[in-house]
Amino acid sequence: MNRTLVFDNRPYIIARASACGVKESEGPLGSYFDRVFHDDLLGQESWELAEGEMLRQTTQMCIERGGLLPGQVGAVFMGDLLNQIISSGFAARELGCPYFGIYGACSTFVEGMALGAMMVDGGYRESAVSASSSHFCTAERQYRFPLEMGGQRTPSAQWTATAAGAVMMSAVKSERAIARVDNATIGRVIDYDIDDANHMGAAMAPAVADTICRSFEDTGRGFADYDMVATGDLGRIGRDILIELLEERGIKVDRDKLLDCGASLFDESQGCGSGGSGCGCVASVSTGYLMSLVEDGSVGRLMIVGSGALLSTTSSQQGQSIPGVAYSVALEGMKK
Amino acid sequence: MNRTLVFDNRPYIIARASACGVKESEGPLGSYFDRVFHDDLLGQESWELAEGEMLRQTTQMCIERGGLLPGQVGAVFMGDLLNQIISSGFAARELGCPYFGIYGACSTFVEGMALGAMMVDGGYRESAVSASSSHFCTAERQYRFPLEMGGQRTPSAQWTATAAGAVMMSAVKSERAIARVDNATIGRVIDYDIDDANHMGAAMAPAVADTICRSFEDTGRGFADYDMVATGDLGRIGRDILIELLEERGIKVDRDKLLDCGASLFDESQGCGSGGSGCGCVASVSTGYLMSLVEDGSVGRLMIVGSGALLSTTSSQQGQSIPGVAYSVALEGMKK
Repeated sequence: MNRTLVFDNRPYIIARASACGVKESEGPLGSYFDRVFHDDLLGQESWELAEGEMLRQTTQMCIERGGLLPGQVGAVFMGDLLNQIISSGFAARELGCPYFGIYGACSTFVEGMALGAMMVDGGYRESAVSASSSHFCTAERQYRFPLEMGGQRTPSAQWTATAAGAVMMSAVKSERAIARVDNATIGRVIDYDIDDANHMGAAMAPAVADTICRSFEDTGRGFADYDMVATGDLGRIGRDILIELLEERGIKVDRDKLLDCGASLFDESQGCGSGGSGCGCVASVSTGYLMSLVEDGSVGRLMIVGSGALLSTTSSQQGQSIPGVAYSVALEGMKK
Repeated sequence: MNRTLVFDNRPYIIARASACGVKESEGPLGSYFDRVFHDDLLGQESWELAEGEMLRQTTQMCIERGGLLPGQVGAVFMGDLLNQIISSGFAARELGCPYFGIYGACSTFVEGMALGAMMVDGGYRESAVSASSSHFCTAERQYRFPLEMGGQRTPSAQWTATAAGAVMMSAVKSERAIARVDNATIGRVIDYDIDDANHMGAAMAPAVADTICRSFEDTGRGFADYDMVATGDLGRIGRDILIELLEERGIKVDRDKLLDCGASLFDESQGCGSGGSGCGCVASVSTGYLMSLVEDGSVGRLMIVGSGALLSTTSSQQGQSIPGVAYSVALEGMKK
């Protein structure tokens, strides 16, 4: 069953913005981010308010670069990891923009790109923004342990990025246009019975493999047709599992073209286990790093595959396994 | 700024399904629901799994009535009140359908109708489903107190409905078609500084007023053009506030046409405070009751306005106020 949305009018990506915390700025991609927050509270009273503020600033930066005011955007698709996506609700409250709340765990940013591109491609709005965030301190205390406890982490565990990213898609070509959105593939929720919340890459890899295979089949494309295939936050271990799963299904994987945002965000020396994670991971790396490669022409065709682990603390405490979901979008640079 | 999505191809509503618990079945609308669950655990080990199972069953019933298998649906838009919308994730895992996770609190079902109708109208998929659920026991223990405590409630408090609803929209007219979707209006996040979680109607009414005014302005319609305008779960108190807010803005409110799903779901004698609430409230009342009125021709043009209160336990504990959001869809019955 075909799951790919084909965008005949190929919406333009006309603006992008990214932000991150100190640790992320010290990683290999640090120089690519637009804004670095040296205070992880951003002057707010709580980390939760800080995350909302980071998301607001990043989204506003993107909208302004697209030449609009927040109220003029067709719609902003937003989501984050906090219960009831409260960072997004608070960011949208400040922005006053038309708003769709979405949740695909760490795949949220790409889910929003798929929906936003559809909205623009279909002529329903002239522009749409996808924006997403995560914050190490909010995620850690919501999903794991109080930071003050200084808990040990397993080598397979991932590190929630303090980061945000926003992208604007438009029906109107402008001088600012970076790329066009060709298509997007909708995810399915897939569960391989992984119940270790410190092994998210393994939980998400099957959904990523499923979406990549589906996209390739629906579009008749393969690794040869892309300059880069970027996964969201499988981490180093999840990336290896993905390669195995793809090869099992007869996909010829070009390892040099396969980048994982989470595995790239931190250096192994930074003590972040298998790599970065969180909604802000694929959002900031896509808008900060990947789209800069597309903008300067060094990457022509880019596929981004966001991956999400659909767990909650309640589901974990009740012994449930962790299903995964993955959404993809395919971009083509203006300079290709 | 126009916020209304106009659907030129006017997707058909070809199937609907609803389910509820015992208390809801004993209310004034009890006879309209397709399935009543007498065991609030649905044979599952936890209320959370029970909610997921209720959502799965309801969605599957809807899809089967639409003549499809779950894997054949274009996409299912799903969301619920639990942290990380875990009921939806688990329902989608069992269904194996293409999946978009969304979150608009109690407005989620209408948000999903807006996005699904857009997807079908634009020709991206032949069919789309919106489905949503809530469960008194899961919501109570996540948002409020342990059930065993038997906490007292204020008169303005609302009662989370144990209920689910699903609707299928299609590009293809069939004998089963109930109505067509004319348009949908996107919400904005609006905050009037209400911080009482037992007064959700007051927190959501400003967003509902904003979306109704916007829709009327964008479409040139008013109360006179609809046979019914149904709000999601403002409750009895919120409904009064809405009328006041609309009249302040010069809207002529026809009180006889204004129904609130939450205020209608329970009888005042049932001890449910200001009325029902939860994602399952507008979902079940829309698919069970309202669409039956459209199907039999007693309501021709129906506007449904889902309302959501964007709070989390963390935001409440941190003393934050409660922003609201509202989405609307306008339907026209086949018999009109």
